[in-house]
Amino acid sequence: MLEINPASIIQTKRDGKENSEAQIQWMIQSFIKGEVADYQITAWLMAIYFQGMTASETLALTKAMIQSGERYDLNQISGVKIDKHSTGGVGDKVSLILAPLAAACGLKVPMMSGRGLGFTGGTLDKLECISRFNVGLTYDLLMQVLHKVGFAMIGQSENIVPADKKLYALRDVTGTVECIPLIAASILSKKVAEGSDGLVFDVKVGSGAFMKTKEKAKTLAKTLIRLGKNLEINCRALLTQMEQPLGYAVGHSLELIECIEILKNEDHSKILGTLVTSGSGDLKELTIQLTAHMLELGKISRNLKEARQLAYKKLADGSAWKKFLAMVQEQGGSTDQVLNPKTLPLTQNTCVWKAKKAGFLSQMHTEVIGKILIELGGGRKKVTDTIDYRIGFIFHKKLGSRVGQDEPLTTVFLPDAINPQILDDLESYFHSALEITPQRKTSSKLILEVI
Amino acid sequence: MLEINPASIIQTKRDGKENSEAQIQWMIQSFIKGEVADYQITAWLMAIYFQGMTASETLALTKAMIQSGERYDLNQISGVKIDKHSTGGVGDKVSLILAPLAAACGLKVPMMSGRGLGFTGGTLDKLECISRFNVGLTYDLLMQVLHKVGFAMIGQSENIVPADKKLYALRDVTGTVECIPLIAASILSKKVAEGSDGLVFDVKVGSGAFMKTKEKAKTLAKTLIRLGKNLEINCRALLTQMEQPLGYAVGHSLELIECIEILKNEDHSKILGTLVTSGSGDLKELTIQLTAHMLELGKISRNLKEARQLAYKKLADGSAWKKFLAMVQEQGGSTDQVLNPKTLPLTQNTCVWKAKKAGFLSQMHTEVIGKILIELGGGRKKVTDTIDYRIGFIFHKKLGSRVGQDEPLTTVFLPDAINPQILDDLESYFHSALEITPQRKTSSKLILEVI
Repeated sequence: MLEINPASIIQTKRDGKENSEAQIQWMIQSFIKGEVADYQITAWLMAIYFQGMTASETLALTKAMIQSGERYDLNQISGVKIDKHSTGGVGDKVSLILAPLAAACGLKVPMMSGRGLGFTGGTLDKLECISRFNVGLTYDLLMQVLHKVGFAMIGQSENIVPADKKLYALRDVTGTVECIPLIAASILSKKVAEGSDGLVFDVKVGSGAFMKTKEKAKTLAKTLIRLGKNLEINCRALLTQMEQPLGYAVGHSLELIECIEILKNEDHSKILGTLVTSGSGDLKELTIQLTAHMLELGKISRNLKEARQLAYKKLADGSAWKKFLAMVQEQGGSTDQVLNPKTLPLTQNTCVWKAKKAGFLSQMHTEVIGKILIELGGGRKKVTDTIDYRIGFIFHKKLGSRVGQDEPLTTVFLPDAINPQILDDLESYFHSALEITPQRKTSSKLILEVI
Repeated sequence: MLEINPASIIQTKRDGKENSEAQIQWMIQSFIKGEVADYQITAWLMAIYFQGMTASETLALTKAMIQSGERYDLNQISGVKIDKHSTGGVGDKVSLILAPLAAACGLKVPMMSGRGLGFTGGTLDKLECISRFNVGLTYDLLMQVLHKVGFAMIGQSENIVPADKKLYALRDVTGTVECIPLIAASILSKKVAEGSDGLVFDVKVGSGAFMKTKEKAKTLAKTLIRLGKNLEINCRALLTQMEQPLGYAVGHSLELIECIEILKNEDHSKILGTLVTSGSGDLKELTIQLTAHMLELGKISRNLKEARQLAYKKLADGSAWKKFLAMVQEQGGSTDQVLNPKTLPLTQNTCVWKAKKAGFLSQMHTEVIGKILIELGGGRKKVTDTIDYRIGFIFHKKLGSRVGQDEPLTTVFLPDAINPQILDDLESYFHSALEITPQRKTSSKLILEVI
C-alpha cells in the first residue's frame, strides 16, 4: 500500500526519487486546506531545490496548483488568446507596448501581470502611475474589456492559483525562489488558469536578469516549453539579452512615458525635453520581435516576416496607441493624463551622475541599477512598501557608447529629501557597477535564441 | 554590514557556504523564542542535510543548543563523571548493566537515557517495567542518588536542551533525522548539559542499527569525537556490530531479566527456565569492553587490560548487582520485583517460530525484529502509544548457529489477543528477515574499531 504522508513524500524527494502525481496533488491540496504544515512544505521545497523535478513531477505540480483555484473560461471571447511572459529585467516595459500592439494586430491578449519583484519592476505598478487605473478587474469586467478593446492588463485575482501565492510567500523567505521547476510551475499555472491559448516567453539573460547565464536561462526556457506542451498550450521562448536597462528609462513614471512616446511614434524630446539623448531602439525592436512571435503563434500571420511587417505597420499607424488609450479608459484610468504625460507623477529634483573617465561603456552590472532605484524609494523592499513613482533614471549612454570624461551617464530623479551622504554612496555604487574601457566591446545580440 | 536574517542564513547554507557562529546562534535563539518561523528552520535543516556542516558550524550549533536550557553542575559530586551513549540497536540493553558496573568500579555515571525510537528500544522504558521506578528525578534528587550510589538512570529533563526537543520534533516529520552533524549536535548538547567529564560512544553498525554501513558509522563517530574535543569533553567511540539482536532477549521485561541474570552472575535458566538455550555472551562482552573504555578514559585504570580485569571482577563479585539494587531503591522502584524477576510483567501466551529448512543462520535483517515487536504492541508507533512490557522474543540461535529443519528459532511472547492472520503475516515477515544457508558464514567481530 502506498502510504501518503508528508514525511515520506519529503524523504522520497530528498533521496532523489520521483514523487508520484498522487503524492504531489495530495501535498498541494493539503497545503491549501492547511492540513500539511508550512514547515513540511518548505522542507519539501528545499529538497526539490537540490534534487530537481522530473517533467512529470513538474506537470503534476502545475496541475495541482491550477486546481487550487478558479480557471477563467475565455471561450466566449472570439479569436486567439495569446499572452507574453517576461522573467523580468531592469527597465523591462515591453508589456505596456506589446499588449496594445498585439491587440491592434488582431490577437486577444488577456494579460495578467505582476508587481515589482526584487530588483525588477512590475507592469501593474507602472500602470498605477495613471490616476484611478484599476488592475483588479472582476471576471465580468475583464470579459467586457477583452471584448471591447481586445486586451486587458490586470493583476492576478485572489481566486486564480491561490497555491502559487502561498507557495511563493514561503519560497521567498526560505531560499527556494531560484529553482527552475518551481519557477516554471508558478508561471504556467497562472497562464493556464487565465485561459490563454498560447504563450510567448521572454526569458532574460544577463546582469539585469534573474538568470545570469545563458545556460540557466536555456534550461528554464526548455522547461517552460516542455511543460507548456504537456499542458497542451502552444509555447515559444526567446532568450533575450538583459545586460543593460531596456530603453532609456528606469522608474515607474519615466518608463510609462517612454512607452507612450513609442506608442505615439513621437520624438521623445517632446515630453522629457532635452534630457533624453539616448534612444529606445532596443526596447522597440524587442517589442516588435516578441509581438511578431505572438502573431505567428496565433496564426494571425503566416510567417515571422509578415508578422513583423504587420506589427511595424500597426505601431506606425497609431492603431496600438488607440488600443492603449481605449484600455486605459475601460480600466478606469485617466486618459487625460496619458494624453498629457507631463501630468504623470514627476519631479524636478534631479541630479546628474557623470563619467569618471573617458572611454567606451563596456559593461553594466544592471541589477545594481534596480537596487539603487529601490534605495531611492522607487521600488519596494517589503510587499507593504509604497512606491514613489517619480523616482528613476534616464540613461544617456548604452553599452558600446563612447563616453567623455565628466559626460553625463544618467540623470537621476530624486525623492524630495535625501541625505547627501547616502546619495554619494549610491553614486559610488552606481560607478562601481559600470565598466568604461579604452576599447569598444561588441555587446551580445538582443535576441540570443528562439526555442 | 553582515545582515542577520533567516532567508539569507538559509541561502548561505543552501549555496554550500559556511554559516557564521553569530548566524547559527541567532537561528537557534530566535527559534526558541518563536521569532523565526518553523518553516524557515525546516528549510535550513534540509539545506544542512544536503550541504553538511563544517566542524565550526557543528560546534556553534551544539553550543547554541546547550545555551537554550539549563546546564547541570556536577562539581559537588566527587570523582570523574563518565557517561556512555549508544546510537541504538535491537536488544541493546548494555546501559542497564554498564552503569552499575562502572559505578562499582569507582566512576560516577550520571546516565541520561531516552525512550524507544523507531525500531530500537529505550532504556527508560525498560526500567519502567519495575513498579514505581522514577526516571524523572529533580536535580536535587539526582545529586542525592549520584552521591549515594555513584550512578543514576534518568530521562532528559524538560529544562535540558529544550532546543533539541523542538528541533527533533521538526526533523522527525521533515526527513532530516538522518543527518550526521545534526545527530552529533543533538547527542553532545545533551551530554554536555548533563555535566559529564567524558563520554564513550557505542556507534552501532549493521542491519539492526540506524547506520547500516561502517563508512557512515565511522563518519558519525569521527564527527562525535571531533565535536567532543571542541567542547572540551574527553571522548572515545567504538564501532560495534549490530547484525543481530544483542544477547538473547528483545522486549522490555525480557531484556531487563537478561540484564538481572548477568548482574547476578546467574545461570539464566533460573528465571525463564529451559526457554533460554542461547547465551548472552555478546552482550556481556560488549558491556565489559565499553565499561573498560570508560574506566580508562576516567583514569580509574592505567590501561585497557587492567580496566577489563577490574570490570570482570566487579561484575563477578556482585558489586555491580548491589549498585543496581541500590539505584532501584533510591529511584523509588520495587526491589522486591527486581529480586524476584518472575513478578515483572510477563505473559504465558507464547508461540514458537521454527526454521523452515536446515542449515546455518547466516544473516538477519535485524531492523525487522524491532518492527515486529512494535506491531505486537511491544514498542511505540506514536510517542503517545502505551508499551506492553510483556511482549518480546527469546532467540534460540545466533548468527553462525547450526539450525535443523523445524528447530525453534525464537519464542514469541504475545499479547493476550491477536488476530491469527496478522500473526501468520508477522511470522512470514520474520522468516523473510533471516537467511539460512548451507555453509556457515563467518560473522564480523563484535567490536569493529575503536576511534
